[in-house]
Amino acid sequence: MSPTGGNLQTTNGGSVVEYVKQNNDRYVAELKDYLSMPSISTLQEYKAEVERTARWLVSQLEQIGFEKAEVIPTGGHPIVFGEWLKAPSSRPTILVYGHYDVQPTDPVSEWSTPPFTPTIKGDEIYARGAADMKGEGHALLKSLEAWTTETGGLPVNMKFFFEGEEEIGSPHLDAFIEKNREKLSCTFCLNADSNISGPDRPSIVIGLRGLSYFEIWVRGAESDLHSGSFGGAVANPAIVLSKLIAGLHDKDGRVALKGFYDKVRKPTREEKDELARNGPSDEELMKSAGVTQLYGERGFTSAERVGMRPTLDVSGMLSGFTGEGQKTVIPAVAMAKISMRTVPYQDAEQLDSSLREYFKRNAPTTVKWEIKRISVSPYAIMERNTPELKAASRALEESYGRPSFFKLEGGSVPVVAMLKNRLGVNSIMLGCGLPDAHIHAPNERLHLPTYFRGIETYVRFFDFVSR
Amino acid sequence: MSPTGGNLQTTNGGSVVEYVKQNNDRYVAELKDYLSMPSISTLQEYKAEVERTARWLVSQLEQIGFEKAEVIPTGGHPIVFGEWLKAPSSRPTILVYGHYDVQPTDPVSEWSTPPFTPTIKGDEIYARGAADMKGEGHALLKSLEAWTTETGGLPVNMKFFFEGEEEIGSPHLDAFIEKNREKLSCTFCLNADSNISGPDRPSIVIGLRGLSYFEIWVRGAESDLHSGSFGGAVANPAIVLSKLIAGLHDKDGRVALKGFYDKVRKPTREEKDELARNGPSDEELMKSAGVTQLYGERGFTSAERVGMRPTLDVSGMLSGFTGEGQKTVIPAVAMAKISMRTVPYQDAEQLDSSLREYFKRNAPTTVKWEIKRISVSPYAIMERNTPELKAASRALEESYGRPSFFKLEGGSVPVVAMLKNRLGVNSIMLGCGLPDAHIHAPNERLHLPTYFRGIETYVRFFDFVSR
Repeated sequence: MSPTGGNLQTTNGGSVVEYVKQNNDRYVAELKDYLSMPSISTLQEYKAEVERTARWLVSQLEQIGFEKAEVIPTGGHPIVFGEWLKAPSSRPTILVYGHYDVQPTDPVSEWSTPPFTPTIKGDEIYARGAADMKGEGHALLKSLEAWTTETGGLPVNMKFFFEGEEEIGSPHLDAFIEKNREKLSCTFCLNADSNISGPDRPSIVIGLRGLSYFEIWVRGAESDLHSGSFGGAVANPAIVLSKLIAGLHDKDGRVALKGFYDKVRKPTREEKDELARNGPSDEELMKSAGVTQLYGERGFTSAERVGMRPTLDVSGMLSGFTGEGQKTVIPAVAMAKISMRTVPYQDAEQLDSSLREYFKRNAPTTVKWEIKRISVSPYAIMERNTPELKAASRALEESYGRPSFFKLEGGSVPVVAMLKNRLGVNSIMLGCGLPDAHIHAPNERLHLPTYFRGIETYVRFFDFVSR
Repeated sequence: MSPTGGNLQTTNGGSVVEYVKQNNDRYVAELKDYLSMPSISTLQEYKAEVERTARWLVSQLEQIGFEKAEVIPTGGHPIVFGEWLKAPSSRPTILVYGHYDVQPTDPVSEWSTPPFTPTIKGDEIYARGAADMKGEGHALLKSLEAWTTETGGLPVNMKFFFEGEEEIGSPHLDAFIEKNREKLSCTFCLNADSNISGPDRPSIVIGLRGLSYFEIWVRGAESDLHSGSFGGAVANPAIVLSKLIAGLHDKDGRVALKGFYDKVRKPTREEKDELARNGPSDEELMKSAGVTQLYGERGFTSAERVGMRPTLDVSGMLSGFTGEGQKTVIPAVAMAKISMRTVPYQDAEQLDSSLREYFKRNAPTTVKWEIKRISVSPYAIMERNTPELKAASRALEESYGRPSFFKLEGGSVPVVAMLKNRLGVNSIMLGCGLPDAHIHAPNERLHLPTYFRGIETYVRFFDFVSR
């Protein structure tokens, strides 16, 4: 058989999957190296660590046998790019997308173990980035290493494309893709920044919500005022902002912005059945969120609310004195961060206008207000019935020993839309995180048995999709 | 004439007031020393500075000729106590109250000059504490110094009583007063922690609002959640808190807590006329607040809102991610600081219960909430027609060259009620700060011509009240 593989059976009668199973312990030891690098993209003081992590990825690609492996500067954190194009040209060229940056760790005091000291407890490894998405990124690398070690090559052509700015909204990615269309040209993208529904519930994300993120500032006096001398006589920006936020939802939990739902497609009966069957169930959602009660838009199940309905959340609020004890002021300023999750076929520009219109109509003249748009990324819906989706389904089924299903995901992965728009290619979302992994939160963790199955899934996927 | 004075004329034909006029420049130079000490009581790292300031006051009292001057430890920052009791026993014994601690300086970036580098611009000196109340404290010291220098003594018996914890709610003061009733016994208290309505609008505060301060915590999940994975399916504590705050006032700007106004006395026609005549006018309030529009309870003038009506303000809010850029979380926790200004004859315990009742009735079961009471201090109303009030009126009139008036003040001075309750004595509020002094805010300042007149006012007051 060809050194470029194409079949799980190796020349010596074993299999690449068998090789993976035999190397699990080593994988965990190496994963710890990756997880111990504090590649926090949003904090300037970690800039050198982010770059060190990029260089580490390049060394991994070189070790696996990539022909090309490089750190490419951008206006912000660098992109890691690699190429292995020795498979027959009849085989697909897969652009493997991921990110090596992680969220910040605050509030650090709520971590049980230090966020960059990977710690195993039972079946889980705890570290910032473990599930979002160093675990998936590492599983991918190990699947490639298994192929090259056991067969001398990969069954498909491959371009490796990891960014360092996903957690800050990928500010330089779209321009990079547009500028490097030839370099990134591919048959489809395998996006590893994904998860499955449970350790024995293999699933493929085929829909992602978009994100529109805003900062709202309400200003009263030029500086904080004494609440004794002025209390009762001037508008309080914190109260004004609270009233404005309170009015953003109606009593049924619906977003009260004009036209917010105008272009939203109603779930079909089939989609509703699929969501009811595949979840997440209310019990699963409560368990993974760590709450005893759910809350959301009336008339929809929780799975529908997260998967198919748009939402508006406050991600942060700050005003006046927030230290210990008391300071009797009327704050000069109040700020809120607003995160909207959007669905097909909402128009981000219309939502932006609608938010501003709401403030124009409802903010009193006693304050000044300002809305800053921090980022916008579109929703994405994948095509069903593509060869790569079939290969992914089969790889999951063989690795987990049960049929996989399609699911809709509440989060956003902006690169999916960018690649569709710039290169015209589809993405397939295939990961091994779990919903209760505490991503973006303290005590982020990766379920090791699922991480091992994730490596196997990638190994099988590259085989099936090459046939 | 007696070395203990009793008359403004000195033996050499001059007057104590004349002496004051001749020493203005020296006073400003010495005031700078006092203002340059960062005696911030709320911040532990300034503890040594607070103590240094206390010792500096003792040295001032010694220099003036006090028989006793000491720093007395408390559970927190020390009290400065001094005695001069050589006036005839027929003369009153005045307990002079003040505080030598100051507010913190944040946000420091909004100061035009460093808060502890006193800087003169035009008629103003800028520094933290300049008007609240190192300026008044210093004016008082200089008035005493003028008397002892020019006449060899004071016209009245005096106890000097300055605390270092006023800006943190005087946590140890009430116990100290109760424990030292004999030491503090007096005819009445002169409270220098006050102000007048304008440089040529001499006034005496005869009513002070009380303060009830609370912290409110709303908790959802155990840690921040990813707004993509959970947005739409769980309650958002920041939104819940906003809705609860929004409901604390009705559309007429009235506090919507049950029974909040039950015991509040309606202003009489005479009081309304007095407030309309003496202000503050809307223009003055807008100018000192630095706003172009006022806002408050419907049916009352701004002077009434600040002077006679109770209010509820949000002094701070904090939830979720408040750093630069975006973090797409649903916050686990949201916190607000609530400052209520209370008026005669509101019952602080009833307001406390009413706030809790409001949360019980209105907070959804999807969150947990907690109300912490940080402090309570009662309102105070002074008796009119006392000899000391007449002496103060006359001292103001002679110093400012125009009649003085009584006014109601929106702020709280808890010690007034403590002294009334523990020692049975009245207080008289006599200061030289101005309403636009930016107290508790950046760029706090003291109007120097008014500071000089303040010294003269104290000089005359001690004379008139001794007769």
